Amino acid sequence: MRSGITGKLAGIATYAAITCGVAAFAQDVEVAEIPSASDVSAYVDNTFLFLVGGLVVMLMAAGFCMLEAGLVRSKNAATQVTKNVALYSIAGLMFWLVGYHLLYPGDWMIAGYLGEFKMWETADDLATGYSSGSDHFFQMVFVAATASIVSGTVAERIKLWPFLAFTAVLTGIIYPIQCSWQWGGGFLSEAGFSDFAGSTLVHSTGGWAALTGAIILGPRLGRFVDGKSVPMPGSNIPLAALGTFILWFGWFGFNGGSQLAAGTFDDINAVSTIFLNTNLAAAAGTIAAMGLTTVLYKKTDSTMAFNGALAGLVSITAGPLDPSFPVAIFIGAVGGVLVVLTVPVLDKFKIDDVVGAIPVHLVCGIWGTMIVPLSTEGTSFAIQALGVVSVGVFVAITSAIMWLILKFTVGIRVSEEEELEGLDISECGLAAYPDFTK
Amino acid sequence: MRSGITGKLAGIATYAAITCGVAAFAQDVEVAEIPSASDVSAYVDNTFLFLVGGLVVMLMAAGFCMLEAGLVRSKNAATQVTKNVALYSIAGLMFWLVGYHLLYPGDWMIAGYLGEFKMWETADDLATGYSSGSDHFFQMVFVAATASIVSGTVAERIKLWPFLAFTAVLTGIIYPIQCSWQWGGGFLSEAGFSDFAGSTLVHSTGGWAALTGAIILGPRLGRFVDGKSVPMPGSNIPLAALGTFILWFGWFGFNGGSQLAAGTFDDINAVSTIFLNTNLAAAAGTIAAMGLTTVLYKKTDSTMAFNGALAGLVSITAGPLDPSFPVAIFIGAVGGVLVVLTVPVLDKFKIDDVVGAIPVHLVCGIWGTMIVPLSTEGTSFAIQALGVVSVGVFVAITSAIMWLILKFTVGIRVSEEEELEGLDISECGLAAYPDFTK
Amino acid sequence: MRSGITGKLAGIATYAAITCGVAAFAQDVEVAEIPSASDVSAYVDNTFLFLVGGLVVMLMAAGFCMLEAGLVRSKNAATQVTKNVALYSIAGLMFWLVGYHLLYPGDWMIAGYLGEFKMWETADDLATGYSSGSDHFFQMVFVAATASIVSGTVAERIKLWPFLAFTAVLTGIIYPIQCSWQWGGGFLSEAGFSDFAGSTLVHSTGGWAALTGAIILGPRLGRFVDGKSVPMPGSNIPLAALGTFILWFGWFGFNGGSQLAAGTFDDINAVSTIFLNTNLAAAAGTIAAMGLTTVLYKKTDSTMAFNGALAGLVSITAGPLDPSFPVAIFIGAVGGVLVVLTVPVLDKFKIDDVVGAIPVHLVCGIWGTMIVPLSTEGTSFAIQALGVVSVGVFVAITSAIMWLILKFTVGIRVSEEEELEGLDISECGLAAYPDFTK
Repeated sequence: MRSGITGKLAGIATYAAITCGVAAFAQDVEVAEIPSASDVSAYVDNTFLFLVGGLVVMLMAAGFCMLEAGLVRSKNAATQVTKNVALYSIAGLMFWLVGYHLLYPGDWMIAGYLGEFKMWETADDLATGYSSGSDHFFQMVFVAATASIVSGTVAERIKLWPFLAFTAVLTGIIYPIQCSWQWGGGFLSEAGFSDFAGSTLVHSTGGWAALTGAIILGPRLGRFVDGKSVPMPGSNIPLAALGTFILWFGWFGFNGGSQLAAGTFDDINAVSTIFLNTNLAAAAGTIAAMGLTTVLYKKTDSTMAFNGALAGLVSITAGPLDPSFPVAIFIGAVGGVLVVLTVPVLDKFKIDDVVGAIPVHLVCGIWGTMIVPLSTEGTSFAIQALGVVSVGVFVAITSAIMWLILKFTVGIRVSEEEELEGLDISECGLAAYPDFTK
Repeated sequence: MRSGITGKLAGIATYAAITCGVAAFAQDVEVAEIPSASDVSAYVDNTFLFLVGGLVVMLMAAGFCMLEAGLVRSKNAATQVTKNVALYSIAGLMFWLVGYHLLYPGDWMIAGYLGEFKMWETADDLATGYSSGSDHFFQMVFVAATASIVSGTVAERIKLWPFLAFTAVLTGIIYPIQCSWQWGGGFLSEAGFSDFAGSTLVHSTGGWAALTGAIILGPRLGRFVDGKSVPMPGSNIPLAALGTFILWFGWFGFNGGSQLAAGTFDDINAVSTIFLNTNLAAAAGTIAAMGLTTVLYKKTDSTMAFNGALAGLVSITAGPLDPSFPVAIFIGAVGGVLVVLTVPVLDKFKIDDVVGAIPVHLVCGIWGTMIVPLSTEGTSFAIQALGVVSVGVFVAITSAIMWLILKFTVGIRVSEEEELEGLDISECGLAAYPDFTK
Repeated sequence: MRSGITGKLAGIATYAAITCGVAAFAQDVEVAEIPSASDVSAYVDNTFLFLVGGLVVMLMAAGFCMLEAGLVRSKNAATQVTKNVALYSIAGLMFWLVGYHLLYPGDWMIAGYLGEFKMWETADDLATGYSSGSDHFFQMVFVAATASIVSGTVAERIKLWPFLAFTAVLTGIIYPIQCSWQWGGGFLSEAGFSDFAGSTLVHSTGGWAALTGAIILGPRLGRFVDGKSVPMPGSNIPLAALGTFILWFGWFGFNGGSQLAAGTFDDINAVSTIFLNTNLAAAAGTIAAMGLTTVLYKKTDSTMAFNGALAGLVSITAGPLDPSFPVAIFIGAVGGVLVVLTVPVLDKFKIDDVVGAIPVHLVCGIWGTMIVPLSTEGTSFAIQALGVVSVGVFVAITSAIMWLILKFTVGIRVSEEEELEGLDISECGLAAYPDFTK
């Protein structure tokens, strides 16, 4: 369970005690032995929050899919969407088979798991405060989001199946280990690191895996010519807008569900505040990115608007509950600015990030994590930095190792000929839009 | 809070009293001082309804975006979707900064607001029956819908940023003021006006703002030649269908959530009835529009089918709870017929409404409001007409003033050259579908 | 109500009795006369499950619409999406007008209905455990799914309005009659047939109606030439991916909502397990279909990946609660394999199924139903076969009769000229993508 849930369970117990107190007082019976209506009711509410929240997050898989389908060239669009359906599938299978075991031992020691292999089963207990299956589902859709982030960056030149092999390792092993440090109650959690819904754990993890992948894979053919960056425009901007809106929609489940409880006065108020902060940060990110890009380039680039929204969302994810509304707007707006400013930096380093996932998820993931102490008591910049760096070093190294193993065994990049012709023909044997393109 | 909520809170209190009565009777203690389980439970249920309902309505932003992306020409599609992402952002920011303060003073007097500027914060109280943040979120997504309506009508020739300036005024000032007359407990509410989820307050408001915009902006180049209407077909009918379905989906949150409470037997039954009436009206609108268009023109125009569905939805929005099912079907079917009949009327007046938002949201918004007395006791055609006219006059005048100010300062229309070339190049600096079009 | 609900109601009553027991014990009053908080709370929770679950299933209409829009050729895409909006409308109207009356008498005798025609109204009773309107809504969206299945198979050559006439009969009469045998408490239910969320009742029903339609309608022009199958690639693979994700999303409502109750510890745990089994089966179906198609054809056909996901979903639908997770993965994976293997079989018989709905919904619907006894106690292969065959014979015969009546009266197929030119021109009078195609 995520750290912080213990306090919540205490709250539930207190609340149950209060609401049962009247009856208990008059009756002199051992109420503890009979599950109280409020225990069950809170259990149902909490589980419902996980299921509905998880379901909303699940749709983010479609959001990433549409965003990426819109931002790749049409000759690679079928491969890109197929990859997205496949990576969501692999995330679900691997997180069940391996990941969940690694996430919840409490730290990164996996000896216990290796010594006694067993497949995960549900184990429901009223005292937990929610159904174990609902927690598993909720965690799983987060893993899938991490995998989707990588998919966008390395698009248009990576082989389908090696990418899926990387996804299996990322979702089954790399993500859960670093996640266990915090949400499994490991050393970051004990040190006081704060990352409410995962600016670091989910987004920068995806960002580091994407960055190492982009570097090891190299840029698309013709992307940098004579030291200059050559734009390769996305083929379907309306689908990218759809993806943005679906992701924005899903983020309410992502951040709101991460309150982890909804059955009490305080919890449901918190979910409401999280909804508003999340929305304001995304709105501010959009307008900030649109404004800055218009000032700098005289045109309001659509993809900057979309990435501005996502930047605001990633930025507020580390702490969507505590900031006041003006602070949430500030956090989101800075996220939008950071995206506009860091896209050219990647170009300068000849790092080819097809959809802009590194500025959005890595840069804003770090920003969102580091700004938490502004609003959240008991956090410190030093500990936030410890979390950012620990996760970054671990994910970058393990991802790089995995990318390199794949590169030097099965290979990760399609041939030049296949890349020029489009991956849809070589990988999927069809065309994404056969009636519109030659 | 919306008018009617007082009655609901009384209901909740009664229900709480009944369910606590057994224990209270036997115990002779002051139960009022301890929050009862059922108070908290209803508070959680009501808040959950606002959050889930609001979330579903939020997705309507994606629905409008896809509908409009599908119905504009491809050379303007990127601008259109960017505009939709931006307007949703601005609605969220402006409604928080200004709008919410204007909505809830109870009438249109804004002196109190102007005299003492402060930014909105949450203020949660168990006695309110729901979290203030969830109410804010729920109201905000309605404002965004109003802005989306305008966006479709004025597409393909309006400048991006001046449109967004209009949106800021619409969502921050115009919408909240007229809305306060009813949902803020103002004079329409006191007069007995009835507009359950906003056929007038949301849809005809958007429609009036769109109509004045279309008139002041003028039609697209080549849209009316030698007194004849020249069709300009939408570029992506499947996206328009997707938008229609997403809007239909969102409308269950729009109308169902407007019951404002879900924690009691009566409330949840009401939400169920609203779901069915909403669905039947939309279905009837679809089939009526399809049938009539097929009879009149021998072809089943897809856009008429989609607008027929939306017409049914707008028509039932003023009163989705009280009509019997056959009456809901009747209301929706008339809405579908009205759309087919009024589209040519706009053409006759050379008013260029790109997506048909005026027939759908303005005409059917009025129709839905005026038919309320057929099913809802205590309402009258005169008072309904008062609401329709008051809102119409106010929104038309204030919108026209704003459009004219923008027209004579920054300008609202792109140059002829830019319009012919497509707004995507002049406004966004890219193409929506670079691989499919030249 | 669906069979099995009686047991659930008993559970609710027991739970209510326990939670009220403490108070009742001490007070010696007739608690049965006062609705207990837990009765109301469970009623609200159950109804909420139906409404939210039904809403999620409703979006499957958009999922089918996008899947089919993506898999038809661009010259027929506008007709296809218009058909989808219309069929959802007709399903809603016909199920309310006729279908619901046929579903719930308990068997296929319709005399009572014919003798005394009346339109359905809500009739809410706390003792039912949920609002009647929410049940109606939940059932209605299932009917719509069945109609959507047919739509995909017979695409690209069927006339719009005759198809809608078939839809009216399917959703108003054929579906409800066979459904009443099981969920109405009819002979299959009494015999012990088990079909949790409708692998047979919903999916194979759609599949049989589609199969008879495809045979009677004949293949598209040029689809089989000189005994060889000629592929006709879908025009918009990203939309097909979107449709797949939306269907996957909707399936959580489809299967999870079919638990029919969410207000108790056991029920909400069951919903959680259903979510996980549903997801794992879909994931396994995806990967199995992708793997097999890659092995067989050296390319990872995108449409096989999508249909693999849907195959996994259909396969687990008959029993998403009882299988252990590894068994759910097995059931889904076999579904994925079945799709890859049966697509060529249809080709061999020159049956033209545009989107692959027959392998997905009919073949996997049967597979999912027949494998239920592996996990569910008290079921037998013989009784499962009885259900599969009864429904199959009934739906195939009634569908064939209806298709033939339409064929020999109004005609069901467009002219050769219209088919070659595309149905969008002849049926809808426009083009789906006028800017991209000639």
